[in-house]
Amino acid sequence: MPGDDDAPLIKGNAAIGQSGGPTAVINQSLYGAVAALREFGHVKKIYGMRHGVNGLVRGELVDLGKEKEKHLKAVARTPAAALGSSRDKPDEDYCRKILEACEKANIRYFFYIGGNDSSDTCRIVSELAQRDGYDMRCFHIPKTVDNDLMESDHTPGYPSAARFQAFAFMADSMDNASLPGVKINVVMGRNAGFLTAASALARGRGKGSERNGPHLIYLPEVPFEKDRFLAEVEAVYARLGRCQVAVSEGIVDTGGRAIATTLAQKLDQDAHGNVQLSGVSALGDALADLVKDNLRTGGKLRVRADTFGYLQRCWPDPSPIDSREARKAAEFAVKLAAKGQRSGSVAIERISSEPYKSRFRQIELSAVAAKTRRMPPEFIEGGNNVSRKFLDYARPLVGELPEMMRL
Amino acid sequence: MPGDDDAPLIKGNAAIGQSGGPTAVINQSLYGAVAALREFGHVKKIYGMRHGVNGLVRGELVDLGKEKEKHLKAVARTPAAALGSSRDKPDEDYCRKILEACEKANIRYFFYIGGNDSSDTCRIVSELAQRDGYDMRCFHIPKTVDNDLMESDHTPGYPSAARFQAFAFMADSMDNASLPGVKINVVMGRNAGFLTAASALARGRGKGSERNGPHLIYLPEVPFEKDRFLAEVEAVYARLGRCQVAVSEGIVDTGGRAIATTLAQKLDQDAHGNVQLSGVSALGDALADLVKDNLRTGGKLRVRADTFGYLQRCWPDPSPIDSREARKAAEFAVKLAAKGQRSGSVAIERISSEPYKSRFRQIELSAVAAKTRRMPPEFIEGGNNVSRKFLDYARPLVGELPEMMRL
Repeated sequence: MPGDDDAPLIKGNAAIGQSGGPTAVINQSLYGAVAALREFGHVKKIYGMRHGVNGLVRGELVDLGKEKEKHLKAVARTPAAALGSSRDKPDEDYCRKILEACEKANIRYFFYIGGNDSSDTCRIVSELAQRDGYDMRCFHIPKTVDNDLMESDHTPGYPSAARFQAFAFMADSMDNASLPGVKINVVMGRNAGFLTAASALARGRGKGSERNGPHLIYLPEVPFEKDRFLAEVEAVYARLGRCQVAVSEGIVDTGGRAIATTLAQKLDQDAHGNVQLSGVSALGDALADLVKDNLRTGGKLRVRADTFGYLQRCWPDPSPIDSREARKAAEFAVKLAAKGQRSGSVAIERISSEPYKSRFRQIELSAVAAKTRRMPPEFIEGGNNVSRKFLDYARPLVGELPEMMRL
Repeated sequence: MPGDDDAPLIKGNAAIGQSGGPTAVINQSLYGAVAALREFGHVKKIYGMRHGVNGLVRGELVDLGKEKEKHLKAVARTPAAALGSSRDKPDEDYCRKILEACEKANIRYFFYIGGNDSSDTCRIVSELAQRDGYDMRCFHIPKTVDNDLMESDHTPGYPSAARFQAFAFMADSMDNASLPGVKINVVMGRNAGFLTAASALARGRGKGSERNGPHLIYLPEVPFEKDRFLAEVEAVYARLGRCQVAVSEGIVDTGGRAIATTLAQKLDQDAHGNVQLSGVSALGDALADLVKDNLRTGGKLRVRADTFGYLQRCWPDPSPIDSREARKAAEFAVKLAAKGQRSGSVAIERISSEPYKSRFRQIELSAVAAKTRRMPPEFIEGGNNVSRKFLDYARPLVGELPEMMRL
């Protein structure tokens, strides 16, 4: 069993926070944590941190214990972070302030819903608390549409965002067949291609599905070469008279430089020093220009780009499996606390795909903290596609999809 | 009764085409037309035009009579134009070719599903046929997400696209509340603001809904002034600490110039000579830059723009009312033909909103052809909002919406 040995349980308060980019089901995790904490005898107050640790250090706490069950259940079905989220990435100094805030509010159980940065915050805070001899149990509850957490089959938030991609690409492929041309869709996922890869679910499995888009998929795991890209678009266009392309916002060239930076001009940086890729449409427009300027198709070529933006992470039609797992993952974290564990994160393990079954597993914070999981080679096919293995992996997660039928 | 007097019915073939931007329910109209034509004794072959009149003049016809009922019903549920669409805007010469193609294939019943350009094609072809003494009945079946056809309460395609806006803005408003800042979303609709206006449905009606986005709505019907825009964003931001903005792609300045042209650089033109506004993200990015460069908020301001692009017209979760009306409008057009009418278009008339009831009405092609309906003044409130009257108008059309709940 990872984590520390069982330790006697201390009575005190609990705090829950949400961090990083919102998802469609992050409030399911909030609900799951509160519901489980209510049944856990050692917790007096259940605090919610406003905007993650940012609110915690400023004393902005809400009393979640007062919320009515029915109201919380409606919040659970609402996308995005009901407590407010934060992009802060605390260093040791910041984490010391977090610990001080916890001591002040007698917080003994700390739950942080987020991605790899959030698990790192958990890890640092947990280590500082132990060093100080302040008994506080720290748990990370996984969440990210990027699906880039280590040790997990997949991450809460990903199935719903993947479902969005399937809906978006299937409808857009029909649109592209109606008014043929080259259509480029830019998908979230800075370092990991899982979300872009999910576009392949849009092809479906019925008759004629091999003609459905996306016809080309460019992942951040495969170096992007302009000339190869143009040749591949041209080949699909020559064959089908149209071409739908899925591109990750995080594609890089052979030297590891972001194509968004090399092709496009203006880019922001977020609080982590990362270049801001979402909410800026430069990459899609630049790729569209590249195709317009270089493709030899004879005659006027219709080229369009869409950047899906924030809709893809919060679309209010979540995968049912995702909603359930997000809630249960948080319940599992509270159970770890109730069992006397000192710290940990939660991984999802798949038992079977048909029928879909999963279970949860405790992992060390250090196993997931500040690490990034990328698409494994067996999920990638050639330079511009995903494998059958990836489709078998992703399909059970997203729930039922509409059927697209051609004449 | 508009149109010509009843004339004896001639036996011959029918042709159906789809034109302009696809919608989520344009195939319901295709299905409705085919189903009704099968019951109409005077029609032998039911042809589908590949890519509208473009395919017709090139002899690209498919035999829709051969399609199985069950298959056609699945096509009806599929977004975008199953026959393929066209952006061609035929002049009289082009229409003469259309007529020649119809004579060659003994087409006596001509149905064209589309917007105001398509009804104009119907009108010209119908007039040419009458002048030539070729007995062909020409009917326009309305379709456009822009909702800009004259005489109709609303247009098939609009309710589903409006539903998309409601989903998109409600989720994005929660996202914006999670990670506060200024968020600008650019919505389709070159000349009419109906689709941008539908964003207001995202506010819902529950407790606290006055805090929900969109907080500002900019329509093409109201001249857009940069300084006023900045002041309004600043005021909302000062009050709520965030601001979600809905902007039509078609906003113009007081001189009638498109803001997309004056603020942004590169723009295509489509086959109609219209500046290409969709599929290009320049407007949203330019407005975001404007806010970043000018807003005095003290501290770093998070500003993002998303351009919803093609997803909004074909999202595969249509409004149930829209699906039904799109099918029934086409059936109504066929009934007009069966009654001996020579030409016409179909308008939707609302009988009541609660419960929602509508009926169809025949109108002259000239009443809708090449005309644009814009948001009436009573649907607009001030310079940056829609009225209660608009909400009462739009709400019954979009179907059930998810409920957003805050803590």
